[in-house]
Amino acid sequence: MTDPGRTAILRAARRAFALQPYNAVTLRGIAADANVSAALIVKHFGSKESLFNAVADFSEAAEQLLAAPDDDLGRHAVLTLVNHRRKHGLDLLIRVVFAAPSGDERALIREHFRDQVTAAFAARLTGDDAELRAELITAQLLGLGAAMAISKTGTTAAADPETIADLYAPGIQALIH
Amino acid sequence: MTDPGRTAILRAARRAFALQPYNAVTLRGIAADANVSAALIVKHFGSKESLFNAVADFSEAAEQLLAAPDDDLGRHAVLTLVNHRRKHGLDLLIRVVFAAPSGDERALIREHFRDQVTAAFAARLTGDDAELRAELITAQLLGLGAAMAISKTGTTAAADPETIADLYAPGIQALIH
Repeated sequence: MTDPGRTAILRAARRAFALQPYNAVTLRGIAADANVSAALIVKHFGSKESLFNAVADFSEAAEQLLAAPDDDLGRHAVLTLVNHRRKHGLDLLIRVVFAAPSGDERALIREHFRDQVTAAFAARLTGDDAELRAELITAQLLGLGAAMAISKTGTTAAADPETIADLYAPGIQALIH
Repeated sequence: MTDPGRTAILRAARRAFALQPYNAVTLRGIAADANVSAALIVKHFGSKESLFNAVADFSEAAEQLLAAPDDDLGRHAVLTLVNHRRKHGLDLLIRVVFAAPSGDERALIREHFRDQVTAAFAARLTGDDAELRAELITAQLLGLGAAMAISKTGTTAAADPETIADLYAPGIQALIH
């Protein structure tokens, strides 16, 4: 079940920790952005540090994206990403893109993405260029998330998830072997 | 020819205008980030407004990405994106993802992206779901840009552009007909 307060906090926290250095982020600022009290953040997530850890953790996203046999993995990943956004208004992965700046704690968000998502896809692949193919699979998933994030009223936002999967999954599936 | 000062200004300006509301951006801040004088920005780009317009304009990027016949368009777009980043340290498209926040001038960056890039791909397509396919083509290009942006030392960053194209272009090309 989705708790709207918790989702709003998570959305605001992802934005804050991805866009700003750790030291610049405050629970008060996240609370204001999420339109909740700082006390509700503490209730759901505990300290600033544990909230950052929740933002930097992709293990649950990876588990959801990869919960399918190899033959269906591309389609499953696309549907999971689209349906998660439709249901929760959140993207499973895109925060790593916003955490691109170097030289501070945001490196941890990128490292977890690599270790928990990219490496998990790589572990499912055999043959040549497994690591490169895994990066390109996550690239396709990040791109789909990006397209949905920048065009909340675009054709992709309105399309049937199965139609999106029909068109987008084969390119991912082609990299899975 | 690449002018390192001009490239540094453009990189800093893209970051500033994508991440902050227009009113919060200053030429002085961009100059500091780019490690140049504000006078050099004025010399290259004129006013803050014209610098914003340069950031919000994707017409040159679209022209480069689309400069190939339909049969080779997927591969050409991938190679153009990868080679542009290798040569200039800049992505042709990714700034639109950072300009995702709503409610201010950044909407113009997203609108130009849609009108200049997505629509230009859509105009090259025939058959069902042309608009959706065009959005999914740009999604794949944004994803590749994102993967290169978040992992400057990853496998994709080091791979031969032709190998990347071998793996990544077919998924794009499958949407072009």
